[in-house]
Amino acid sequence: MSATEVITSLQNAHVKRLVRLRGRREREQDGVILIEGAREIARAVASGLTLSAVYSTPELHSPEGETLAPTLHAPTHLLSRAAFEKVSGRENPDGLLALAPTPAPTLPEPGADSVTVVLHGLEKPGNVGAILRSADAAGADSVIVLGRGADPYGPNVIRSSQGSVFTLPVAVMTEDEAQAWLQERDFTTFACTPDAGRAYWDAPLTGRVALLLGTEHEGLPEHWRRTDHSVSIPMDASRGADSLNVATAAALMLFECARQRRARSGP
Amino acid sequence: MSATEVITSLQNAHVKRLVRLRGRREREQDGVILIEGAREIARAVASGLTLSAVYSTPELHSPEGETLAPTLHAPTHLLSRAAFEKVSGRENPDGLLALAPTPAPTLPEPGADSVTVVLHGLEKPGNVGAILRSADAAGADSVIVLGRGADPYGPNVIRSSQGSVFTLPVAVMTEDEAQAWLQERDFTTFACTPDAGRAYWDAPLTGRVALLLGTEHEGLPEHWRRTDHSVSIPMDASRGADSLNVATAAALMLFECARQRRARSGP
Repeated sequence: MSATEVITSLQNAHVKRLVRLRGRREREQDGVILIEGAREIARAVASGLTLSAVYSTPELHSPEGETLAPTLHAPTHLLSRAAFEKVSGRENPDGLLALAPTPAPTLPEPGADSVTVVLHGLEKPGNVGAILRSADAAGADSVIVLGRGADPYGPNVIRSSQGSVFTLPVAVMTEDEAQAWLQERDFTTFACTPDAGRAYWDAPLTGRVALLLGTEHEGLPEHWRRTDHSVSIPMDASRGADSLNVATAAALMLFECARQRRARSGP
Repeated sequence: MSATEVITSLQNAHVKRLVRLRGRREREQDGVILIEGAREIARAVASGLTLSAVYSTPELHSPEGETLAPTLHAPTHLLSRAAFEKVSGRENPDGLLALAPTPAPTLPEPGADSVTVVLHGLEKPGNVGAILRSADAAGADSVIVLGRGADPYGPNVIRSSQGSVFTLPVAVMTEDEAQAWLQERDFTTFACTPDAGRAYWDAPLTGRVALLLGTEHEGLPEHWRRTDHSVSIPMDASRGADSLNVATAAALMLFECARQRRARSGP
């Protein structure tokens, strides 16, 4: 960490660039991502990502950030509190923000019991981030984001994934690319739809499994519903409940995969 | 629905009161709750709640709201778009907001296979609402909120519960009251903690089950951890994942209860 002068002007070129980079198109143009928060930066570095710049406001650091900051190998710019608050996307910023080249992870070749999650049309960054976090914790292999839903490397996805977006391989693919990738590797695909006759816990979720999830309102397009299997999450409709949050549905399916794997391999 | 003059002034007494009622203390003083959105109002009415006032801006109504509005039996005040946007807590308001007396649900006497969720110290309305929604869908009996965490009838809980707060009995209790209530009714309590040796899917979650959940960071106090059983959600820590969102953890435990009940009773 190389200390320099403290940037105080909100008109400073760094400050202006960081604000601009809150836009997806601007990040894509520059080929960079914006990582805010000590926890998220630590997980990005742990995953092997090389930071291109660090922006730091020591008076805002959390204990975790105080420990982390001196270990970061990248040109470091000190910001005043006001300047940091200007560039931060958080209500209570912790004074650490970094830039890195946009990761281009390759999906790992699947093992015999690999689980991957395929997301169709999800636009809410909070849902995509929550699914990444659950997939990471459940031991899934990867997440495939179809088309132009939420930017998996957007600041709100990074945040709600708690950094899992860096440790779990995430690929953005077209529908055709994803179907080819899954077919070539003999994945069995399970589409999660409200009207399937089979409960997810009764489906054989072992082997190579792809879990397909769409938006709560639109679900999956017909194209993807004509897949190997459809499963649903049984709901008690007696009081009028008729849907689950898509991130909740994803977590239920992911951990059912984990449960069936443990049950097979024994405790 | 009785149409009256359209309220356009942001200084109007109704407008000022609705803004004031965004505060928890103010709602408690007046003994009312504020229900925004056609879906939420519909579920509140379906649960038997009597509305004391309706505020409506027809040009903002969704198709659902257009159908609902004429059926609402309560003094109705028309607001201009600007006035509605002033009183709304949403980014894209749907032009329907209602007041109702604060519900005081009594918990139902549990059946032989009842599940209740006990929440300790949860402050984020989004998490409490998400847990209510999942508990409703999973067929749980009730939710008990301990002490002064999030207001279960706060606007953000109502919203993220998608109205389930009205259809699922929710009680606010002290810790002592809750323990007495559960003990008198022979509930077996399962505390969800990260360090328990037993996986939740290996625990016998049938019979009368109380699921105890605390905050992600602080977990449950020692007092509540010395409970009948502790269970954990097995996580793949190989990439550094070490926690789940508390609403995700709740959903996993709730649907494992449902799974074990279905497995016992047959398909």
